[in-house]
Amino acid sequence: MLKEKLQTLGIALPALAGPFGAYIPAKVSESLLFVAGQLPMKDGKLLAIGQVPSRCSIDQARLAARQCVINALAAAQTAVDLDRIVGVVRVGAFISSDASFTQQPLIANAASELLIELFGEPGKHVRAAVGVNVLPLDAAVEIEFTFLLST
Amino acid sequence: MLKEKLQTLGIALPALAGPFGAYIPAKVSESLLFVAGQLPMKDGKLLAIGQVPSRCSIDQARLAARQCVINALAAAQTAVDLDRIVGVVRVGAFISSDASFTQQPLIANAASELLIELFGEPGKHVRAAVGVNVLPLDAAVEIEFTFLLST
Amino acid sequence: MLKEKLQTLGIALPALAGPFGAYIPAKVSESLLFVAGQLPMKDGKLLAIGQVPSRCSIDQARLAARQCVINALAAAQTAVDLDRIVGVVRVGAFISSDASFTQQPLIANAASELLIELFGEPGKHVRAAVGVNVLPLDAAVEIEFTFLLST
Repeated sequence: MLKEKLQTLGIALPALAGPFGAYIPAKVSESLLFVAGQLPMKDGKLLAIGQVPSRCSIDQARLAARQCVINALAAAQTAVDLDRIVGVVRVGAFISSDASFTQQPLIANAASELLIELFGEPGKHVRAAVGVNVLPLDAAVEIEFTFLLST
Repeated sequence: MLKEKLQTLGIALPALAGPFGAYIPAKVSESLLFVAGQLPMKDGKLLAIGQVPSRCSIDQARLAARQCVINALAAAQTAVDLDRIVGVVRVGAFISSDASFTQQPLIANAASELLIELFGEPGKHVRAAVGVNVLPLDAAVEIEFTFLLST
Repeated sequence: MLKEKLQTLGIALPALAGPFGAYIPAKVSESLLFVAGQLPMKDGKLLAIGQVPSRCSIDQARLAARQCVINALAAAQTAVDLDRIVGVVRVGAFISSDASFTQQPLIANAASELLIELFGEPGKHVRAAVGVNVLPLDAAVEIEFTFLLST
């Protein structure tokens, strides 16, 4: 179960970070839980700012991607009991990138790897990872999630 | 009901704007209605052109985001009776942005706020809003939508 | 049926190209099949590299978009028998673009047209096509897909 797994991994979910606009953090539709695009906020500040790699290192962006997963779970629990989340369907990762930076998957992997650690085999998901020239609040990473719910 | 609400707000749906390619405006899958990425066409012209803010003001881009919602409903009614749409699940907003512009949520809010005005509580949705360097036809905004249908 | 149609069109599915990270090629959720963002790999190399049009021609990017469909079907068959795929719900196309290039739909059309050729009427789909400043591995095109399964 997710709550137990988070405890085992020593991950405490933060207070909700965001939403940063007129939307909600998470919404259920039948067996899917849609979570809004997450920014890598931690303790009220962005963990990673600016285009990779000129303004943000790959390592820092990877930390940020991992934080987006943690924030996504904090968002998720506004809509469901965490233990109802049994897997991951899709991850959409946007990486603020210099036009010459082409290793977006390396950064998105940090999110995907944590999801698989948390959910095991059902945590494996499809993914689109792309570069963009800029993100909200100048974040280095924004990631959205579609989770699978038990019924 | 949506049709009555549109009338109350004095919003007349335009003739279908787009699609601008080999795709369809809207498609139903069980209780979800997927609507194609909408450009802010109004009376045959784009309401907002170019990267924000160097070529398009934030205010103009907000008007454009609102128009994308109206166009999305025009698209939706090619697939369903409008009164079957009872809520909104997800909004994906792409904002044509200068690399230094980081207020994409402010623009996407104009779309989200109209959706909540139209649908009330069930209109609240998750959202991903990102910057991109350019959009089709040089539009300032492109927004896609997933609506919830009554069954 | 899809397998027969592929044969008629003389399209042989390649060995799986990708995934290029910690994710899976395809995942089923009820009647939907989500396929990861596809790059235009062919015989182990990208068919189209760089921003359109300064580094990649529109024609080459169109060939690449078509290849993404073929790779998506190779990805799909890791999760389902191809003949269970009966239609297409959504296409998300990201085109690596110069900031002055605004004909992303022309490129995405090459993918959409092949899908309609393969699936007929049920192959018609909604689509979001946007420009981005850069893509993984410097690909010119990345496309993700949501297919409809027979139940």
